[in-house]
Amino acid sequence: MASSVVVANGNLNPNDTRGKTITCKAAVAYGPGEPFVVERILVHPPQKIEVRIKILFTTICHTDLTAWQGENEARRAYPRIFGHEASGIVESVGEGVSDMNEGDLVVPIFNGECGDCKYCKCEKTNKCERFGVDAMKKVMVSDGATRFYTMDGKPIFHFLNTSTFTEYTVVDSACIVKIHIDGSNGDLNRNIKRLTLLSCGVSSGVGAAWNTADVHFGSTVAVFGLGVVGLAVSEIFHYYWPPFQKVAEGARARGASRIIGVDINSDKFIKAREMGITDFINPKDDERPVYEIIGEMTGGGVHYSFECAGNLNVLRDAFLSAHEGWGLTVLVGIHLSPKMLPIHPMELFHGRRIVGSNFGGIKGKTQLPHFAKECMNGVVKLDDFITHELPFKEINQAFDLLTTGKSLRCLLHF
Amino acid sequence: MASSVVVANGNLNPNDTRGKTITCKAAVAYGPGEPFVVERILVHPPQKIEVRIKILFTTICHTDLTAWQGENEARRAYPRIFGHEASGIVESVGEGVSDMNEGDLVVPIFNGECGDCKYCKCEKTNKCERFGVDAMKKVMVSDGATRFYTMDGKPIFHFLNTSTFTEYTVVDSACIVKIHIDGSNGDLNRNIKRLTLLSCGVSSGVGAAWNTADVHFGSTVAVFGLGVVGLAVSEIFHYYWPPFQKVAEGARARGASRIIGVDINSDKFIKAREMGITDFINPKDDERPVYEIIGEMTGGGVHYSFECAGNLNVLRDAFLSAHEGWGLTVLVGIHLSPKMLPIHPMELFHGRRIVGSNFGGIKGKTQLPHFAKECMNGVVKLDDFITHELPFKEINQAFDLLTTGKSLRCLLHF
Repeated sequence: MASSVVVANGNLNPNDTRGKTITCKAAVAYGPGEPFVVERILVHPPQKIEVRIKILFTTICHTDLTAWQGENEARRAYPRIFGHEASGIVESVGEGVSDMNEGDLVVPIFNGECGDCKYCKCEKTNKCERFGVDAMKKVMVSDGATRFYTMDGKPIFHFLNTSTFTEYTVVDSACIVKIHIDGSNGDLNRNIKRLTLLSCGVSSGVGAAWNTADVHFGSTVAVFGLGVVGLAVSEIFHYYWPPFQKVAEGARARGASRIIGVDINSDKFIKAREMGITDFINPKDDERPVYEIIGEMTGGGVHYSFECAGNLNVLRDAFLSAHEGWGLTVLVGIHLSPKMLPIHPMELFHGRRIVGSNFGGIKGKTQLPHFAKECMNGVVKLDDFITHELPFKEINQAFDLLTTGKSLRCLLHF
Repeated sequence: MASSVVVANGNLNPNDTRGKTITCKAAVAYGPGEPFVVERILVHPPQKIEVRIKILFTTICHTDLTAWQGENEARRAYPRIFGHEASGIVESVGEGVSDMNEGDLVVPIFNGECGDCKYCKCEKTNKCERFGVDAMKKVMVSDGATRFYTMDGKPIFHFLNTSTFTEYTVVDSACIVKIHIDGSNGDLNRNIKRLTLLSCGVSSGVGAAWNTADVHFGSTVAVFGLGVVGLAVSEIFHYYWPPFQKVAEGARARGASRIIGVDINSDKFIKAREMGITDFINPKDDERPVYEIIGEMTGGGVHYSFECAGNLNVLRDAFLSAHEGWGLTVLVGIHLSPKMLPIHPMELFHGRRIVGSNFGGIKGKTQLPHFAKECMNGVVKLDDFITHELPFKEINQAFDLLTTGKSLRCLLHF
């Protein structure tokens, strides 16, 4: 084995690593909620239609947090490498990969796009039959095995099609997207950092507003839960309507468009206001239910409400905050409770609707490159989401920042 | 009082009744599930923006049955006159009624359209702020009183904006629609009988498919519950696509469009087949869940499923029968259970959607006249829905026919 193992140490030349097992740093989780152990692991070469990526930056999303803390027996698989928001460079490709080359800049997507299944061929959905998001999945599709091993040869499980808390990862080619960045503005490194956010949070939020809700000009919106996804939902107002800031400044006075942010952490309003939220409600500050307050503020409810908190009570508030007759609630948050939707069948007769939005309804391979380009042009202010940056070995500190609500995204670099 | 009371006995001249109390036959319900008492009652003249109608035909819908049998304390109001499917002639109008004249042919609509509220002015909904469907309502809006009284002067409550189990009824003008029928085909009486069905069942079913789901050509459909509403959902295929019968005959062989009917009463398939249903499933005939059978029949699920049964287990089956990624479930049935939607929030991420359809999304005043015209031209075969006809005094027998599943609609005439 020794002859086919290459130790990662700075920038490797693909000629030295191609087809070989790589030894590199990774943050391994050994049990639910247990601190990550940053240690050396073995990363096998990519198999058929797989790609091995050198991760440049990775961040932590609440889904990592939830999965890592989760006690769900069925989903448990340890040791495991979490992480699904990242940017990186293709180190090598497996047999049959035709849309990707060594050295390409890529972002992994937890909700893949094979391009061949009935879902990928239908414009109505971003679901993928073989490589769609799957919280139960822990091994590669091609052979049911893992590509990660501890130094003494024990398998380490994969997570969410991606596993990015490692210097090198192996993913199905359906689960990475090649992004072209124009380096002419001289700040390639900064742009790659920003790209990291497109793997999940920002895309999910912007896509929920853009693809799923298809918000219209002048509409009223309520966003429940002001994490990265929630803020990205509001961010869409810049994306959609360059004149939005004008609308916010001028039209607010005449009772026009509002973006109401709801969060139990009032500190979040400071950031949120910068990003387009016009009003803020902290449910703790008022005895009335939030939907009543929003109903009063908007003359009956908003056009669109977004549930980005993953809480059933919040979900019901979001549903009732939407206007009868036409209001749409978009479910973005992850709900691990076994409880059913807190909506009575007859309530649907009032004309409120609810839909789910997975990865913002974005087809990764097809739509993300264009979205990335728009982001690089500044239509979504990605920098605002990166509040911290730490070396990869400090990953446990980065989790603390997220758990305590101090960070939006903490970028980890190798 | 004697001088202002006119006794209904055959066709009255409005000149004799206008502004006076009328004594006429009605079927009064004195308690939940108690047989209707056909007796004489007093019907007061219409007040401001109200209309008094001489009912020509009325039928019984499951909603009458459910409300009459219902034990819901909050909704209980006796004595009461049920009924909401009917056709009739305007006997007289109250102050301020401008769109209706004595002698006009009309159908009552339980879900009114005032034309002035924010909902009526929005094309996205058929909700009406003042005169929308309201199961709790039992008196007139204008003065909070009833227009029906027993012969000894006790008030009799109204039902669902309409109360049609009476020779004369009083409704808000927002809750009746003037219909023009061309009598040139010499069968005016038959056409008026057919119109009766547009008050609720057929409109609700056809509208659910046409307005709410907006079914597309070649799509697959599953209809759960083959009562009038369910059959009307399938009937839309005639309405939409005159070539449908050809599709049903020819294309079925090559696995094209299907309309799958689901009911625990196999007898219903005979009628259903005539009306466009291509396949039938009786859940009692198979141990597998219905959604699994439908999934197999359709390669993953139907484009549209319609729940017309008012049962939560059926609702879940209907939801899971829709294809992941794009399937839409339309809730048409009335659910009186206090239980919430049997759908987990995360299931919405699979791309299945669910929406409610009240009165088929039809704006009564605006859209029903045109729909009636289309029906008179034969695009919806209304005759098929009328399976029985009885004199009004046999209303209890008509209820039996519906309860035992023997009738679709039993027309009652005065």
